[in-house]
Amino acid sequence: MPTYTAPVKDMQFILHDVLKASESDIPGYAELERDFTAAILEEAGKLASDVLAPLNTVGDTEGCRLENGVVYTPTGFKDAFEAMKEGGWNGIDLPEEYGGQNMPYVVGTAVGEVFVSANMAFNMYQGLTHGAINALLAHGSEEQKATYLPKMVSLEWTGTMNLTEPHCGTDLGLIRTKAEPQDDGSYKISGQKIFISAGDHDLSENVIHLVLAKAPGGGEGTKGISLFIVPKFLVNADGSLGARNAVSVGKIEEKMGIHGNATCVMNYDEATGYLVGELHKGMRAMFVMMNEARLGVGLQGYAQAEAAYQNALAYAKDRLQGRAVTGPENPGGSADPLIVHPDIRRILMDQKSFIEGARAFTFWGAHLIDRAHRLGDKDAEAMISLLTPVIKGFQTDKGFEMTIQAQQVFGGHGYIEEWGMSQFARDARIAMIYEGANGVQALDLVGRKLAAEGGKAALAFFEMIKGFIKENEGNEALKSDFLEPLKAASKDLQAAMMFFMQNGMKNPNAALAGSTDFMHMFGHVCLGYMWALMAKASAEALSAGTSDATFHETKLATGRYYMARQLPATGLHLARIQSGAEPVMALAADQF
Amino acid sequence: MPTYTAPVKDMQFILHDVLKASESDIPGYAELERDFTAAILEEAGKLASDVLAPLNTVGDTEGCRLENGVVYTPTGFKDAFEAMKEGGWNGIDLPEEYGGQNMPYVVGTAVGEVFVSANMAFNMYQGLTHGAINALLAHGSEEQKATYLPKMVSLEWTGTMNLTEPHCGTDLGLIRTKAEPQDDGSYKISGQKIFISAGDHDLSENVIHLVLAKAPGGGEGTKGISLFIVPKFLVNADGSLGARNAVSVGKIEEKMGIHGNATCVMNYDEATGYLVGELHKGMRAMFVMMNEARLGVGLQGYAQAEAAYQNALAYAKDRLQGRAVTGPENPGGSADPLIVHPDIRRILMDQKSFIEGARAFTFWGAHLIDRAHRLGDKDAEAMISLLTPVIKGFQTDKGFEMTIQAQQVFGGHGYIEEWGMSQFARDARIAMIYEGANGVQALDLVGRKLAAEGGKAALAFFEMIKGFIKENEGNEALKSDFLEPLKAASKDLQAAMMFFMQNGMKNPNAALAGSTDFMHMFGHVCLGYMWALMAKASAEALSAGTSDATFHETKLATGRYYMARQLPATGLHLARIQSGAEPVMALAADQF
Repeated sequence: MPTYTAPVKDMQFILHDVLKASESDIPGYAELERDFTAAILEEAGKLASDVLAPLNTVGDTEGCRLENGVVYTPTGFKDAFEAMKEGGWNGIDLPEEYGGQNMPYVVGTAVGEVFVSANMAFNMYQGLTHGAINALLAHGSEEQKATYLPKMVSLEWTGTMNLTEPHCGTDLGLIRTKAEPQDDGSYKISGQKIFISAGDHDLSENVIHLVLAKAPGGGEGTKGISLFIVPKFLVNADGSLGARNAVSVGKIEEKMGIHGNATCVMNYDEATGYLVGELHKGMRAMFVMMNEARLGVGLQGYAQAEAAYQNALAYAKDRLQGRAVTGPENPGGSADPLIVHPDIRRILMDQKSFIEGARAFTFWGAHLIDRAHRLGDKDAEAMISLLTPVIKGFQTDKGFEMTIQAQQVFGGHGYIEEWGMSQFARDARIAMIYEGANGVQALDLVGRKLAAEGGKAALAFFEMIKGFIKENEGNEALKSDFLEPLKAASKDLQAAMMFFMQNGMKNPNAALAGSTDFMHMFGHVCLGYMWALMAKASAEALSAGTSDATFHETKLATGRYYMARQLPATGLHLARIQSGAEPVMALAADQF
Repeated sequence: MPTYTAPVKDMQFILHDVLKASESDIPGYAELERDFTAAILEEAGKLASDVLAPLNTVGDTEGCRLENGVVYTPTGFKDAFEAMKEGGWNGIDLPEEYGGQNMPYVVGTAVGEVFVSANMAFNMYQGLTHGAINALLAHGSEEQKATYLPKMVSLEWTGTMNLTEPHCGTDLGLIRTKAEPQDDGSYKISGQKIFISAGDHDLSENVIHLVLAKAPGGGEGTKGISLFIVPKFLVNADGSLGARNAVSVGKIEEKMGIHGNATCVMNYDEATGYLVGELHKGMRAMFVMMNEARLGVGLQGYAQAEAAYQNALAYAKDRLQGRAVTGPENPGGSADPLIVHPDIRRILMDQKSFIEGARAFTFWGAHLIDRAHRLGDKDAEAMISLLTPVIKGFQTDKGFEMTIQAQQVFGGHGYIEEWGMSQFARDARIAMIYEGANGVQALDLVGRKLAAEGGKAALAFFEMIKGFIKENEGNEALKSDFLEPLKAASKDLQAAMMFFMQNGMKNPNAALAGSTDFMHMFGHVCLGYMWALMAKASAEALSAGTSDATFHETKLATGRYYMARQLPATGLHLARIQSGAEPVMALAADQF
C-alpha cells in the first residue's frame, strides 16, 4: 500500500526562505513564524499519513454506493471526516466570525496540499464545501451567511457546486434548469445537474447545493443565469433542520478514478431555492471564486504527482534490478537498486523538479490572492487572474504526466492495482478536465486574460522577470545556470505574445491554435522563475553557512535540472505557435 | 458505447501507394493486389466492428474470474474466439504446412491492427499464441512443431510466454524457476511466474506455456536460462490430450486495464516441461522473436489511439458547445459543434497525424521483416533490429498520450466509464510497460542497437533519408513543407548520435541519460520520413488526376501538420541530450 509523508521542510523553505512570509506587510503574515507553520503542517501531516492516506486505496476499491436514495461513502470516511472536523481544518483560512481561524490563504493552501496528496477523493468533500463558502462570503446576504456559514465552516454541513447539465458543460449559456419565482421571495428550482462532486453522502447532516439556473426575464445565454442556494434539508428559522427539499440523487457515476468521491446526477423537482446575489448575475458570482477553485485544482495536479513520486522513489531505492553501467553499486546484492540507472534518474528528476517548482508557483499564487484580498492590491489581483489558467492547466497536464512517470518506475507492478500507482494516475486525470477543461483554460488565458486591461498584467509579468534578472546579474551562482535560461525562455514567451498580437487581430484562430502551447510555455517560464527564486534563496543560505547544506545543494541541483532539461520546451512551443492557424485549421470538418 | 470501423482505405494507401507491395520482389508480395487486400481487410473489419468492438466494454466491465482453479473469460469472448478460429485469422501469415496461409507479415500486421483497435484485451489471447508459435517455429524440434503448431495455428490450443517472476522482470538473470532434468529427457519445472497474459482461460482446449527456467550447470545470470514447453494438458503420442500437468493459476491480477485478458500468477510445481532449442540458450531463443513481439506492441500503441480517435472525432462533430470565434458555423443550432474550435482541431490533428504516420512506420517495419525472412536480406534485418525499440517505445508513449487527448475531447464525459474513452487510455497504458518497459527500449536502442556492427544500420538509416531528400529535391510539392523539416530533424538526430559518440565512451551515463529523448527523436524522424513518403505518393496521385483528390489533399494537409507541429520536437530532445549526464546524475541517492 502506498504511503505519504508531508513535505514540511520543502513547504517551509518556500514560505520562509523564498516568500519570506513573516516579513510581509500582508495582514496575518507576521504571525507566520517557522515554529508556527511547522506545528500546523506537521499536525496536518500526521492526520494525512495516519488517517487519510490509508483510506486512499479503500476509497478507490469500495467507491460510493447509492441505496434507496441514500449515498454511502467508503469504510472509514465517516471517522476520518470527524477527525477533519475536530481538527478545525476546514476553517483554517476562513473568517473568525463564522468559526474560522482567519489564517492567510497561503497556509490553507499548504495544508490543502497535504490532504490532497494523501487522499484526493476524500478531500473533495471538504474542498467543494470550501468553494461554496467562498461563493456565499462574496455574494450571500448577511442572513444567508449567518444561516449557512457557521455550519459549513465547521463541516457539520457540506456544500456543492451545480453547473453542468447533460447537454452543456463549458457552454453554460445552454443551461435549462429553471427557477420560478414564488410569492415568498424563494424560487422553485427544476432540472437535472450532472457530474456533481460530493453531491450527496453520509458525512454531514445537510448538503448546501449552489445551483446555476435560469429565472424568467434574464435574456439569452449566460446573461439569464442566476445562482441559488438549494439545501438538501430546508433550514428552520432557529437554524434546526426542517423538511427534506425536492432534490435527489439520480445515480452515482462510474468513473476512471476518484471513486471515493460521490459524483452524482442531481435531480431538482421544484426544489426550494434562494437567490444568491443579484438576479441574472449568477455567472459573475461564479467567476469571482474561480481563481481560488482553479488554483485548488492546479494544486491537485502536483499534489497527486507528489504522492506518486514519494512511492516511486521508495521503490527505485528498494527494487534490485540490473547493474549500473559504470559498475556495481550494490556488489553484495543480487543486483543494484533501480535508482542507479540514468533513465530512472531522469524520470525521478522530472518529477522532483516539476513538483517543487509547481509547489512554489502555487504558494506564490496563494500569496498573490492574500495580497489581493487582505491588502486590496489591484496589481496582485490582476497578476493572479492572469496566472490562474496557467496554474490550473499547466500543472494538471504536467501533474498527470508525472503520475504516469511514477507508475512507469514500477514496471508491471505499476499497472496492477496492488501497489496503488494506477490510482494516482486515474485520480490525477480528472484535474485536467473539471473546473474548466484545460483547453478552456488556454482559451481563457489567450482569449481573455492576456489582453485584459490593455495587457497590464502580462507586461507586469515580463517586467518582473526582467527586473529579477537585472537585479541578480552579478550573482555568479545564478548567472549561467538560472538567469540565462530564464531570459531565453521569457524571450520565447514574449515572441509568442508578439505573434498573437500581430496575427490574432486578422485571424483569431492564429492565436487560439497556439493557446495550449502558450499556456504550457507560460507555465515553464513561471516554474523557471520559481527555480531562479529558489536557487537564489539556497545560494544565500549556503553563503550564510546554513546548517543544512545538503538540502540547499539538492535544491540547486534540482533547479539546474529543470533549467537544463525542462525549460527549453519553450522553444518547441514557440515553433508550434509560429506555424500559425493554417496547419491546425487546414481540413474541412468532413475531411477528417 | 464506442464504435470502430477499420481504416481500410488508409491501410491500402500505405500498402499500395507507399510501399508499392505488389511491385516488390519479396515472395508473396506479387499477389497483394488492391482487390485482394481490400477483401481481406474488409472481412477483418466486419468481424472487428460487429463482434469484437461490442465486446470491448463488456470485457472491461466484467473482467475475468477464477473459480475453483478455472479461469472464465467475459461473456461473449468464447463465441468471438470461435469466429476468429473459423475465419482462420490466426494463421494468415503462418506457414502452410501447419495450417496457415503463408501471406506476408505485413498483411498479418494490418489485420492485427484491426483486431487490436476493436478489442485489445481479447486479441491478446491470439497475439500471445502467435508469439509462442514464432518461438517454436524458430527453435522447436521437428517433433515439437508437428505436435504443437497445427493446433496452435488453428487456435484449438493457445500459447503464453512466461518470463517475469515476483522479484525480476527486466533483469531476467535473477530468475529462480528451476528445471530438473529427468531420465526420459523431459524436465520438472518448479517456480512462480507472474504477469502471464492469457495465462489461462476457457477459450481453448489446451494452453501451451513457454517458460524460462534455470537448468543445472548453466552458470550465473542470463547464461543459465533455458526455454521450455509446459503444456497445461500433456499431449499423448497420438496428439490427444493426456493428464493435467502440475501448473495452476495462483490468481488473476487486478489491473488498470485490459480487464478482458486474464493476467495470471502461474505456479509450476514439478510440472513436466520439454526443452526448446539448446540448453542454456533460452535467452537467445527469446530474443529472436522479440522484434516481432515488440512491433506488435508498438502497433497496440497507435491502434488504441486509432479507436479512441474515431470516437473523439465523432463526438467533436456531434457535441454542440460554444461558437466558433470567427462566427457561428451552425447558426440554426443552439451552438456550434466542438470541431470548430481551434484547440479541439489541434487535439484531433495531433492524433490523426500521429496515427497515420505510425501506421506507415509499422507497416514499413513489417515489410522489413518480410524482406529479412523471405529474402534473407541482412540489411533489412539490421534495419528492423535498429528500429524495433523505436516502434515499440515511441509509438506506445505517443499512442497513450493520444488516447488521453481523445478522452479530453469528451470533457467530463471522457472521465466517466459510460462513453468508453477511459478504457482506451487504461488499456493503452500497458503497452508502455510490457514486452520491455519503454526505458528498457531506449537502453536497447542507445546501448546496443545504435552501435551494432559498427553502427552499420544507423548509418544506412541516415543515408536512406539523405538519399530520399536528394532524389526529391526538385519536387516543389515536397520541398519546403516536407524535405526541409525532415532534413533539419535528421540533422538533430545525427547531432545527438555524435554527442553520444563523443561523450559516451568517457562516461556511458552521458549517453544513457539521453536515451529516452533519443528514442523519441528517432521516432519523430521516422514519422517525418513516413510523412514525406506519403506526401510524395499523394502528390503523384494528384498529378496523375486521381479520382479521389480529397483523400490525397487531406493526406498532404495532415502531413504538413506533422512536419510543422510535431517534428520540431527533435530540437527539444537534442537540447536535453546535449545537457549531458550531469543534471540527471547530480544527486546522490540519499539526496532525493
